[in-house]
Amino acid sequence: MSIVVLGCGLVGSAMALDLARHGHEVTAADVDDAAFTRLGGNTRIKAAVCDLATAEEVRQLVRGFDLVIGAVPGWLGYQTVSATLEAGRDIIDISFFPEDPFDLQELAEQNGATAVLDCGVAPGFSHVAFGHLSRWFDEPQSLACFVGGLPAVRVQPFEYRIVFSALDVMEEYTRPARIVEKGEVVVKEALSEVEEIDFPGVGTLEAFNSDGLRSLVRTLQVPNMIEKTLRYPGHATKMKFLREVGFLGKEPVQVDDAEVVPLHLTAKLLFPQLALRRGEEDLTVMRITGTGIKAGRRQRVTYILLDRFDPVTGITSMARTTGYTATAVAELFLQGKIARRGLILPEMLGQEEGFIELLLGELAERGVVYERSVETV
Amino acid sequence: MSIVVLGCGLVGSAMALDLARHGHEVTAADVDDAAFTRLGGNTRIKAAVCDLATAEEVRQLVRGFDLVIGAVPGWLGYQTVSATLEAGRDIIDISFFPEDPFDLQELAEQNGATAVLDCGVAPGFSHVAFGHLSRWFDEPQSLACFVGGLPAVRVQPFEYRIVFSALDVMEEYTRPARIVEKGEVVVKEALSEVEEIDFPGVGTLEAFNSDGLRSLVRTLQVPNMIEKTLRYPGHATKMKFLREVGFLGKEPVQVDDAEVVPLHLTAKLLFPQLALRRGEEDLTVMRITGTGIKAGRRQRVTYILLDRFDPVTGITSMARTTGYTATAVAELFLQGKIARRGLILPEMLGQEEGFIELLLGELAERGVVYERSVETV
Repeated sequence: MSIVVLGCGLVGSAMALDLARHGHEVTAADVDDAAFTRLGGNTRIKAAVCDLATAEEVRQLVRGFDLVIGAVPGWLGYQTVSATLEAGRDIIDISFFPEDPFDLQELAEQNGATAVLDCGVAPGFSHVAFGHLSRWFDEPQSLACFVGGLPAVRVQPFEYRIVFSALDVMEEYTRPARIVEKGEVVVKEALSEVEEIDFPGVGTLEAFNSDGLRSLVRTLQVPNMIEKTLRYPGHATKMKFLREVGFLGKEPVQVDDAEVVPLHLTAKLLFPQLALRRGEEDLTVMRITGTGIKAGRRQRVTYILLDRFDPVTGITSMARTTGYTATAVAELFLQGKIARRGLILPEMLGQEEGFIELLLGELAERGVVYERSVETV
Repeated sequence: MSIVVLGCGLVGSAMALDLARHGHEVTAADVDDAAFTRLGGNTRIKAAVCDLATAEEVRQLVRGFDLVIGAVPGWLGYQTVSATLEAGRDIIDISFFPEDPFDLQELAEQNGATAVLDCGVAPGFSHVAFGHLSRWFDEPQSLACFVGGLPAVRVQPFEYRIVFSALDVMEEYTRPARIVEKGEVVVKEALSEVEEIDFPGVGTLEAFNSDGLRSLVRTLQVPNMIEKTLRYPGHATKMKFLREVGFLGKEPVQVDDAEVVPLHLTAKLLFPQLALRRGEEDLTVMRITGTGIKAGRRQRVTYILLDRFDPVTGITSMARTTGYTATAVAELFLQGKIARRGLILPEMLGQEEGFIELLLGELAERGVVYERSVETV
């Protein structure tokens, strides 16, 4: 099948390579010609220079393909998905755009096209698992996702490297977190309720509230749901300190003769320090737990992911875990294993009987392995 | 005697009130009419509105007085002292200006006038004590000054309030500290070599290198001299973190469409949080130690100051300890107890036989009490 990947960044290029390896006819599209060097000279992948910020260019481009994969930054996501749907093409998207995904439902239906949105690792696999667990239990009680992308080597002061969009990282520290407690949506401050957890193979990490549930707040009827971001211990305290002093503020401040948004200066100062250096390895950690009643007993199901940078291909763990979830879903979609059409969120796929097992199989084939365990609690 | 106090800020007003209480004919000068409210309606003090940033206005003003007290901010200090000397008047100054004080030596001599500079608490009393100790020992070995102005009530995240010039506070965190080690001037990073000390009556504090020795590096021949700034523990770590990220940088950074000096944004964000609130009380802590050989034995002399906000007058401890050192020196100057003329630094006064005892007497009369102890070590 012919597939176009919109965006040839860290994740988009990893997806294009993976799809090509699986025998698809792949085109990578990017506005920046230099982005294609990430394909490592793979001649089976075609390169298309395209201004993905221009809807008409996207519509023209995607018409020539069987399937579209969206891998643009969050701010551009809604627009590229819209353009793809307008062209009547199906899309698997990982952009995690800030707009409400349900706003695209009508557009998808009108054009007889399908959009699987938020289809990365978290949101993405995490939502598949939440959807699955919401049905697996006779009475689901609580679902929790702890997730983070971390550098393998810890360097002070932040012990963190940016492994996806830099501005989206800052959002994790500022955007209020919507969680579900006793059936009610509750808004918590970002970086709040810091707790330590011991992650096998990685050691002690800290977890804090972040706004990752997104559509789950609306699509699942589970009384308690939470997402927390994982970092090495001490990171949250430093970010809270910066926020407390005002360095994460979005309101302009008068400094000398200029108006300055403190967050923008902070981003400018932090990004060079936080960028993943060439040769630096990352890892992705995720622990998803579901607790509830199943067959008359209170049980806990746990999915654990510990994925590492691939030294052979140089592909980051964040690109692997995010990108391969989307390519695995694409594979299943092209194989006709996904019956649903129109607007699809990953939790909807997870709710389908047998889907998570198929997805876990595709991911394992790509070396992304989740460990599942069930215990009576 | 008729005395004019240049600057009617927190410290200047406290000095004017103290001089008036001691029977002098006092005029307070300030560019801002509102500053005179700090005199609490004391009708014995005359108010003179004067643009102290204009040398000619200063020269005109000071000609009518027997003695001048300088209490302007650091950036304005050199200019007001120069103008005063040009007018042939004597001045006791606390402005701690960044320029080299020795540049004023010739001007003072040409005009037959005297300038006692850096005449606050530290530099000021600290330098008197260093000068005294450099002579008291037969063989002085090391002199150390640990000093800080602190809020009585500790509020996170900084547990600090600004009790003197805000920009001068930022300098303590950025300006490299010149200290003397084994007879050599050594430059240490600001905020370096953090150590904890237990201060009687206050508890555990932290001390870090700051650039406070100033003229002592040149005027005293003592093999080891150091000044450290005192804060509640944890403060230095936070400031170092801000510096490490770049928030104390003085080089402009491009942010959106503007060039921004990070330190200026930091100052803008920090000052409202660090300003001493009305009703908040401060305290001043200082520990000066001198070690050396005296009468064949190795001895250590310690001066301890723990001074508190005056709830009766509302005068801050920083204004008391800084301002009263200058008014005490003024008193001794007017009484003819200071023989030296021309450019005078406090350590030169401290080297005069009996001077420190006279100064301690004047300060004690004003409620600023140093505890002196001597031990064999």
